[in-house]
Amino acid sequence: MSDLRRQIDPVDVARFRDLALALADEARRRIRGFWDHGFEVKKKPDGSYVTSADLDVEQRQREMIEAACPDHGILGEEYAPRLPDAEFQWILDPVDGTEEFVQRLPTFSTVIALFYRGEPIVGVIEAPILAERAHAAFGLGAFHGDARLRLTDLDTATPAKAVRIMLSARLNFVRNRDDGAIFDAITRAFPNHRIYRSSYTHLCAAAGQVDAMVDVGNVIWDIAAARILVEEAGGACRVVQDYVSGPERIISLVFGRPSVVERLAAFFGRPA
Amino acid sequence: MSDLRRQIDPVDVARFRDLALALADEARRRIRGFWDHGFEVKKKPDGSYVTSADLDVEQRQREMIEAACPDHGILGEEYAPRLPDAEFQWILDPVDGTEEFVQRLPTFSTVIALFYRGEPIVGVIEAPILAERAHAAFGLGAFHGDARLRLTDLDTATPAKAVRIMLSARLNFVRNRDDGAIFDAITRAFPNHRIYRSSYTHLCAAAGQVDAMVDVGNVIWDIAAARILVEEAGGACRVVQDYVSGPERIISLVFGRPSVVERLAAFFGRPA
Repeated sequence: MSDLRRQIDPVDVARFRDLALALADEARRRIRGFWDHGFEVKKKPDGSYVTSADLDVEQRQREMIEAACPDHGILGEEYAPRLPDAEFQWILDPVDGTEEFVQRLPTFSTVIALFYRGEPIVGVIEAPILAERAHAAFGLGAFHGDARLRLTDLDTATPAKAVRIMLSARLNFVRNRDDGAIFDAITRAFPNHRIYRSSYTHLCAAAGQVDAMVDVGNVIWDIAAARILVEEAGGACRVVQDYVSGPERIISLVFGRPSVVERLAAFFGRPA
Repeated sequence: MSDLRRQIDPVDVARFRDLALALADEARRRIRGFWDHGFEVKKKPDGSYVTSADLDVEQRQREMIEAACPDHGILGEEYAPRLPDAEFQWILDPVDGTEEFVQRLPTFSTVIALFYRGEPIVGVIEAPILAERAHAAFGLGAFHGDARLRLTDLDTATPAKAVRIMLSARLNFVRNRDDGAIFDAITRAFPNHRIYRSSYTHLCAAAGQVDAMVDVGNVIWDIAAARILVEEAGGACRVVQDYVSGPERIISLVFGRPSVVERLAAFFGRPA
């Protein structure tokens, strides 16, 4: 089966990547300003936070996309969708891990991604306070800062306790439906685990700082950059859950070093 | 019961605190150098890592302590104890979270503490790459950078799912003996949890970035700064496990906002 994404001129892919990096620069600059000088926090009806930083960054990013690519759609967490039927769709989450941002834990991140007919073309994870960034573009590789990422696999015989993983908090496993038993089983089998509650973990998996990430119970903007980042780095990305809860489509992913992804995906039963 | 620590002149407490801050400055400078320019890694017989950064920083800190306080003892992870019978004992762990350091996750930290007849006088958690530091000295308060820390409590009726905690990985609960059921019970009851595998979590709890930390299965240098930091910030610190495993004394602590500490300590049964 031919990959739809090969229809796009690599010159355009590089241009879209450069725009995504400019959006990340803008996020870093503005979010650092809010971090140093303060921001407003409001609770949304669902109990989650929204801050003046989210709104400001997403608005500015939308302006930049509309100026550079007026025929592209935009799906962001804080504003209404733009051109939802366009073939190219930007997905934006200016502050993923808003609870961390509000509580001054520096491990939150900005997610920027571009999809073409449902397939990812560009992905960026920017951690503004950590001054770390990972980015990837279809056919053009994945990078952590300026360093090209090339994930090696682990020997399939590596004992589970020598495998380093990250996973979502148990809250993500039980928020939409009760998959708590999967959290329990994974934490028992792979006891050298970390839980950082943001897409900063996607950077960690793409860069091989951990062997894999299990990201459960997400809406699309939380995970939009993960697949292209990890695949361009030579890793694997598996959809292990995909279902509807209320008005939202909920997706769970496992990604990182291929053999570890296979071992972790097995906890979710039949592949989605 | 009178607190032994009141016997020490506050002028001396301040002097020891200033020495501890100078040790932290040295750790930050040297560890950033290793982070940027590389270091050697060796596996110790127990499977844990030691790096040239650990050895270099601890050696330099020992020289500074010996010059300033020649009658003080020193207990560090990498070298033999100095003056083990002295009333004042420095406890040093230059890179706590060595696995994070080696894998380039910036959430490791340096631990520096001073004890007087078994009671903590000074504690510092330095996160060199995050450029964050928390410190405290007996009677002189706790600080995050330059900001005085004053932990408020949570309403005891706060639902568990609205409480933000950090805890050790399940590996820490099963490494010395099988307390895995406690990990399972805590992660079920308090699903909004984070796992960062270093004493950087102690800074987070003292600064109120999370409501409490459950730190399980440690040797003394991992946790030496936690109690003074959290108590001087107005929080609580409870020893919930204290036992011997092989050659080592193993200690588990719960610390942070007082009502949350009580709720979490209950998972360990009778207080130690």
